[in-house]
Order: sequence, then C-alpha cells, then structure tokens
Amino acid sequence: MKRPLGRRELLADAGGLVLCTLAGQELLRDRGTDVEELAAGVEIPPKVRAAQAEGLDPATSRTMLAAAGGPAREYWIRAEPIKSWDVVPNGRDAMMGKKVKGKTTFAAFGYRAYSANFAEALGPASIPGPLIEAEVGDTVIVHFQNKLGAPVTIHPHGITYSDDMDGAYKGKFTDPGGFVQKNETFDYVWEAVEGTQGFWVYHDHGPMDPLPLYKGLFGPLLIRDPSEPRPTAEFFCGFHSFLPVTTGIDRAFYCINGRAYAGNTPTCKSKVGDDVAFYVYALDDDFHTFHIHGHRWRTEGDGRVVDNVPLGPGDSLTARFTEDNPGRWFYHCHVFSHLHEGMNGWYLVD
Amino acid sequence: MKRPLGRRELLADAGGLVLCTLAGQELLRDRGTDVEELAAGVEIPPKVRAAQAEGLDPATSRTMLAAAGGPAREYWIRAEPIKSWDVVPNGRDAMMGKKVKGKTTFAAFGYRAYSANFAEALGPASIPGPLIEAEVGDTVIVHFQNKLGAPVTIHPHGITYSDDMDGAYKGKFTDPGGFVQKNETFDYVWEAVEGTQGFWVYHDHGPMDPLPLYKGLFGPLLIRDPSEPRPTAEFFCGFHSFLPVTTGIDRAFYCINGRAYAGNTPTCKSKVGDDVAFYVYALDDDFHTFHIHGHRWRTEGDGRVVDNVPLGPGDSLTARFTEDNPGRWFYHCHVFSHLHEGMNGWYLVD
Amino acid sequence: MKRPLGRRELLADAGGLVLCTLAGQELLRDRGTDVEELAAGVEIPPKVRAAQAEGLDPATSRTMLAAAGGPAREYWIRAEPIKSWDVVPNGRDAMMGKKVKGKTTFAAFGYRAYSANFAEALGPASIPGPLIEAEVGDTVIVHFQNKLGAPVTIHPHGITYSDDMDGAYKGKFTDPGGFVQKNETFDYVWEAVEGTQGFWVYHDHGPMDPLPLYKGLFGPLLIRDPSEPRPTAEFFCGFHSFLPVTTGIDRAFYCINGRAYAGNTPTCKSKVGDDVAFYVYALDDDFHTFHIHGHRWRTEGDGRVVDNVPLGPGDSLTARFTEDNPGRWFYHCHVFSHLHEGMNGWYLVD
Repeated sequence: MKRPLGRRELLADAGGLVLCTLAGQELLRDRGTDVEELAAGVEIPPKVRAAQAEGLDPATSRTMLAAAGGPAREYWIRAEPIKSWDVVPNGRDAMMGKKVKGKTTFAAFGYRAYSANFAEALGPASIPGPLIEAEVGDTVIVHFQNKLGAPVTIHPHGITYSDDMDGAYKGKFTDPGGFVQKNETFDYVWEAVEGTQGFWVYHDHGPMDPLPLYKGLFGPLLIRDPSEPRPTAEFFCGFHSFLPVTTGIDRAFYCINGRAYAGNTPTCKSKVGDDVAFYVYALDDDFHTFHIHGHRWRTEGDGRVVDNVPLGPGDSLTARFTEDNPGRWFYHCHVFSHLHEGMNGWYLVD
Repeated sequence: MKRPLGRRELLADAGGLVLCTLAGQELLRDRGTDVEELAAGVEIPPKVRAAQAEGLDPATSRTMLAAAGGPAREYWIRAEPIKSWDVVPNGRDAMMGKKVKGKTTFAAFGYRAYSANFAEALGPASIPGPLIEAEVGDTVIVHFQNKLGAPVTIHPHGITYSDDMDGAYKGKFTDPGGFVQKNETFDYVWEAVEGTQGFWVYHDHGPMDPLPLYKGLFGPLLIRDPSEPRPTAEFFCGFHSFLPVTTGIDRAFYCINGRAYAGNTPTCKSKVGDDVAFYVYALDDDFHTFHIHGHRWRTEGDGRVVDNVPLGPGDSLTARFTEDNPGRWFYHCHVFSHLHEGMNGWYLVD
Repeated sequence: MKRPLGRRELLADAGGLVLCTLAGQELLRDRGTDVEELAAGVEIPPKVRAAQAEGLDPATSRTMLAAAGGPAREYWIRAEPIKSWDVVPNGRDAMMGKKVKGKTTFAAFGYRAYSANFAEALGPASIPGPLIEAEVGDTVIVHFQNKLGAPVTIHPHGITYSDDMDGAYKGKFTDPGGFVQKNETFDYVWEAVEGTQGFWVYHDHGPMDPLPLYKGLFGPLLIRDPSEPRPTAEFFCGFHSFLPVTTGIDRAFYCINGRAYAGNTPTCKSKVGDDVAFYVYALDDDFHTFHIHGHRWRTEGDGRVVDNVPLGPGDSLTARFTEDNPGRWFYHCHVFSHLHEGMNGWYLVD
C-alpha cells in the first residue's frame, strides 16, 4: 500500500492547499490565480447566449415583476476593479503594537454604489459593497453593471425572489442574472415580504465563484421591520479572509470589512444608553466566532445570554444590547490564529 | 530552538495530512489505507471472546429487553462491500457545466436493507444506509449482520438504549454489539421513548472507526411524533466527504448521500403548497452549513428565521417550511471549497 | 502568474502550518517555540511603565471599585510553570485499548489556587486552572500573581468589568491588568451582576496570547443563580489541544482538561436520578462538538433536544438533564480525528 508521496499528494487536500477545482483548473490556496484570465475559458450559457442573440434586454425579460406591493427601493451598483486595495492602510497591528511587515496591497474587486442611472459614484468601490437596505413590504431593485473582465453577479440571502433573480450560475440552466458579462447590466428584483426581516448578506455567485467574492465582491443586506424600534448605534462587520489565491501575497489576512488589524478594521463607537446592534456575517472558507469584551447579549430567537457565538460561511446574526459599559474594548474572532492575523477591531464606548 | 523541519514534521498536523492514529498506525488523510488489512491486527475484546467461547448468541445475551411498550419495528441490515461505488455516476458537475476528470470509483462499504430474516435484499447496498424510522413509543430492533473483513457496528444517535446496545467499541470494556465480526449477527434493541422524537443519524462506531464510516457506513434515523402532521415532501441529505485515506483517489470529494455534484447528489422535488422537510446531517471531519437558495425556514426550538445553518460532525437538523417558490434552486454547503468539490444539489419546485 | 512554490509558500497558511505571527516572529503549528524567550522582546506598554515609575500598586490604582453590592468572593491565583505535565499519565488510550507511544510530557503553564494572601497552595498548578465560582450579586476579586518568564493575564468571559479589568493586552493602550510581569501582582475586580449567570471561561489574553493559553492558562468560570436548584452532579470539561508549537512534541494531542484519551481525561460519575450538568467549553484553534452516548438534553434557551452540539473557540455551554440511563458511556468530540487523538472520556452512571 505504501509508496512515496508525490508533491501533488503532499499538497492535495492538505487542509486547504488545494482550494478547489474551478473552470477545469486546480486552485491552490497559497498561489495567486488570475481570475479574469481563468474566466476567459468559460462558455456563455445557452439562455444567456439566446437572450443576447435576440437582442433582449435581460432586465426586461425577467419572468416575475415585484409583487410585494410596497414602494420600490432602487440601487445602482457596479462591480469594478480596485487597482490597489490596502488591507492594512495604517501599516500597524494596534492590538500587538507592531508594524505589519510585507506587502499589504493587491488588485481587488469591489461593488460600488451610484446615483440613479449610474449618473455619479456615491463613493469609491469598497470592500464590502454598499449596504442594501429595505423595509418589510418593499421591492428592492438592484441595477447591476459589471465592469470586470470576468462574469459576476449579485446573489442575496434571506430576501424573496424568483429563481431567475437569484444571481447564481447554474451551468446550462443559467439565467441572464447568473452570468453578467463585462459592460452588461442586469436588474435584480427582490421582495422584502413579511418574514424576511433581519440581517442577511449578498455576494457574487457567478461562474468564477468564490474567487471574485474572495477579492471583495460581497456586502450586507438589512431588512428592517418598521414596527420595531431602530438601534441608535449600528455596525456592520463582515468576517472574511484574503488568501494568497486571490491576492498573490504570500500570507493570509483575516479581515473585517476588507481590512486587517484594529485601527484598520472598523472602529465602532457608541455611548452609554445606546440601543446597539452589531450586524455580523462570515464569508470565506472558515468558521469564525464573534466575541466582544465586557459585553453580553441575548441571541435572536432563543434569548440565551452569550458573549461569543459561532458563524459559518454565509451565516449572519444580530448582536443587540443596551450599552452600559464605557471604555476601550476589543471585538474579535475567537479563533486565535484568525485573531492574530488581523480579525479584531476596537469598540469605543463613551 | 530552531532546527530543520523533517518530512514527518512537515506533514504532522498540517491541518489534516495526519488524520489520526488507528490500530497503532498513523493514517494520512491523503493516502489510501486498507481498512480490512489494518483490522487484522485488532484483538478481540475479552467480553466478545467470552461470549463466543460460551457459545452465546450475543443477540439473546443482551442485558435489557425493550420496555418502550409500543410495537416493535424490525430491520434486517447487512454491512457489505460495494465493489465499485461511483461518486459521480453521470460524470458531470452540473453547477459548473463541466466534466469531472479523473477516477471517481472506489471500493466502498454500505449498509444494505433486507426483508425479514435476511430472506432477500430490498435493494443494493447504498451510501448512506437505509432510513431507520420509528414512531414515539416504538421499540426498534436492528438485526445487524457483518459481511466485511473488519469488525463494524451500528451506533445510533438520539434514541434510548442500554450501554451494551450503543454499538461502540470501548477497548477492553467492549460489549458484543461494539465489535461485530465478519459473518456474525447482532441484534440491536433501541427504544423510541417520549423525548426522542426528531431527526438523528446512525453510523459505525467499531474499532476501525472512522474508516468504515468514511467508506460509507452511516445513515439517517427518524423518530416521528404521531401527534404531529407529516411533511408532504421530505428529503434526507447526509453531508460528508470521501477522502483519499479511504478511497485511494488522489483528491477529496465533498458529497451529499455518497455522491458529488448536482445531478449526482439528490435532486429533491416538491410542489408549491407542500409541507417540506429537509432532514440534514453531517458526518465527516469538517464543519458544514446547509443553505437553500430562495427559501427561509424557522429553526427548530427557537424559531429564528434562517437560510443557512452550521452543522458539525454528528449534528442533524430539520429545515421545515411551506413551499411557496417554484423554480430550479440549489441547496448546498456554503463552505466555498466544499461547494466546489461537489457538495451541492438541485431542488426543483413545481 | 505561475512560478515554483517555495518552502515558505508550501508552509504558509497550509491550513495551520503557520499558526500566526507573534511578537514579530512567524509561528509554525508544528514546531516548538520558547514563549519566555520570545516574550523577552516585547516592550512594556506606556501605562504599565508609568504605573511602575510612579510606584503605584496597580491593584489599588484601578479606576473602578466593585459596585455589585453583594459579598466579595476572593481568589488568590498564581500563574506558574509546570515542569513536566503529562498529557497521558496512565500511558493508555482506553477507547482503543492501546498504549500511547512517544513522548507525552512537556513544560506547561498552569494557574494555581492559593489560600488568602498566597499563604499556601490549595493544590498543584493545574490544567485547566481552578474553578472561579460566584453567585449573582457577588463581586469577584482575583488576586493574580505571575511567576512565569512572560507577561500573562486573566481575561474572563461573561462577567461584568470595567475595561481596565479585562486582562487584555491592547498594544499602547494596555492597562496594568493586561500585562502582568514576572513576580508582579494584579487584583482583578469583576461583578456578577444580574444577567451574567451561566457558565463561562477565563484565559490568558496577554501579549503572548495564544501561546500561554496553549500551554495551559485557561479555566472555567461559573456564575450561579441562587434562586435556581443546583445540579446534584456536575462536571467541567474544557476541550482544547496541545500543539507542537507549545509542547515541542512531534504530534498534536486533542484534550479534555489537559489530558488525552479516556482514563486520563475526566471520568465523570453520577447515579440514576441525579440532576446532571456538564459544563463544556472549547479553547483552541478548532471547532469541536460535545456528544454523550445514550443521553439527550435540551439546549439552554430554545429547549431543542440534542445529543451533539457544536462549540467554537471561546464558546461555553451547559448540558443539563436528569440521569435515567446507567452504564459505561463515552462523551467525546464528534470530529473524528479529534476523537481519535484523545478527545474522549468515560461517563459512568450507577
């Protein structure tokens, strides 16, 4: 049974060295991959090709129009290259009081919010993308335009939509919304019906998934219940990693909102008496936990008192509490190696 | 303190290259192991040897007889070799619209259901094994016969049993039900008392565990509450992996019910208005999540609305909802590398 | 884009070979690191230096005094070296009925309980540290003294405290309680206010975290609600690992309370009719599950019936049930490789 280990075997499935196979190519976690180059080999799915050939505007060929009955919330969002995203803009790991050595910038992807009809950018392309927000009863329309060299999409969690609006690549069954090519536009129509209220995520689910997501194509989606009081201080914290496979940098960064290390990750600020909500989600290959020093909250649903909760990829949660403890606190992932590779931030209470 | 890294150190604990030590041998995740050959070196535990020497039928030497008071549900199940199990029978990854290259068959193990007294097979040996089903109040009797060259067992979760009926190898304390040798039979008696209703799993827990399980020896166990309405559409989805250590194939497959990639994994079908239940479980070395596109459900117990939930090894859950969204949907594990190595399937709603 | 893989890349982020960077040095999971040597390069934070320069007793310079109003519970705890901690004192893996080969001892760290004013040790330094116990309304004062060659701390979960009492290193913002040097003492004052009742953990969170924790600096913290009945049998089970990085031993041990393999891990004993509580927590880089054979319990909060639950790093839970099933049972982590590397124990019911 025994034979010498080849390098392929040494690498294969070594808890992550092989990330997965994509577009016929084996991806290694630790080695840079050019997503746009890899995308060049992907065939256009038949329904997408047919729609193009007939000159259909995919945005109007959708089978379902919104039926939620409430007002429409419209977003104009572009997927754009970010020439040089700095994971550690201030160059420091404030938790450890150290400089962060080595390269911290790479060519990323970002979702970018625009004003109506893409008239003007509302800010730079960012990681994560803009908050998509609605109230129960709303129809959400996302006018999505792709400026990247690979087909990408927007796939939302939690909200209601027909299957051609799910933004998922499905091989030969792919609808136009699951394969939005460079310079094309697709209008996603989703409905925030009763029962969808809560905190969710959205992310690319196109044919190159998870690489575009791992370069930055994800964001928060919040559906508010208008009959419930709004938090007076709220924070959106996306837990994810930048791996060598998409950064080309010879180390992994464990990040919150595209940045690593306290002072670069969001510094969340509140004051005593605030009705605080942390909206937390995870979107990478790992499991994380969300922990805040000096605070506890009741979990949604069952009301158990906790100060640390697990999060798998695609999970989202709300940690809500009345602030009563001033000071300088950490919030972080309690997986120690993630904490020390950057997955921590300041929470400052006046 | 510094010294050069040896290959042993390079491999050791590299997030999985060393799986574990078993029967005195170090197992590598990435390298085939012959379970039956390895089992040859395992000693017969004293209580098992004594029962054999005295000519006792282990099935009648049990210390406890069923006391649940309800009717008995009898199952006849054999553990059998599966000469060539194909993980990807149609050869395709429908999510990515690609052929799956390389070897996809291996010599697996399966539980196989028989009619009374093993008169005739009710179907082929399968991965996972047959559904074991009961109602609250039932006594479940599983007549278990082993046709494999390694001692194996059936260990159930959730249901009630005395400790000699737990199907677990316990070193020198092992009861006959924890070490069922080739061509031997053991009758497991379990009781579906009040409080055990719900969805659970069963799996091998013999002396070679987890290798026989990793070759296919696991299955679903459902205890129904007769006072509750039955779902009108129900699906059993076991999330697990086939690793090189038990397949000898130079890659890992991330599977649902023994198959990888949509079109090979279960294609679940329902219609609008159905009372749908997905019974989902995980049984390998990894954590997974269960996600369905376009759907939400309330978690058991606390009723939180979710569309993605984490599952550790041995966990089982029911995702139940009234179907209201027709179309072609994916259900999948949201760990991206698992998703792309096959852990996804179609959910089709009319 | 392609270039040959260097050894650094081969190792980097291979699912754990690189644990993290600490004090400017890259730590490998698989290679011993001398914590005290590494600590020598860490600068004393400005607030700690200032307090020393002014001759302040950090224990009295705290900004907050306890306001819980209830009686004070005082603990005297020292962090001490444990010259030779044996992970497998009886040398056997009782689950597999095998001797455990190779080295099982290493130079560990432990928290050690003393009588008032450190007059005398109440037992040896242990892994985990002593139970810190309080009732709702109590003020907990932990007089903490460090006898190790690296600055360490005590950081509690769940209980209330001001930010200078959180025992966390915070770079230049570090308070004296977040950097307790060799031979120094710090008095932590924490308050078990209403809402903090439950089971929690404490652990080192100083500048060398997680290495001192990975050598043994963690323990259980229980806040009882005096209006609730006490369990008649209770067990504290810390799930963690000893990795080569802190042991220098060429393998990982998956442990419960500092020991690996049934017979070395806690053998928990109860009798039929007992009101049983298992207090379980996880504190390493991995996710675990807690499973007991032959038993079920209702989760805290939502009351779902389970026999296996996931635990992330920093999580803690109570599994409570009325004992009705005599026999010899296993409790264990259901991640199979952890189970087989030692994370299992006996539960004996009379």
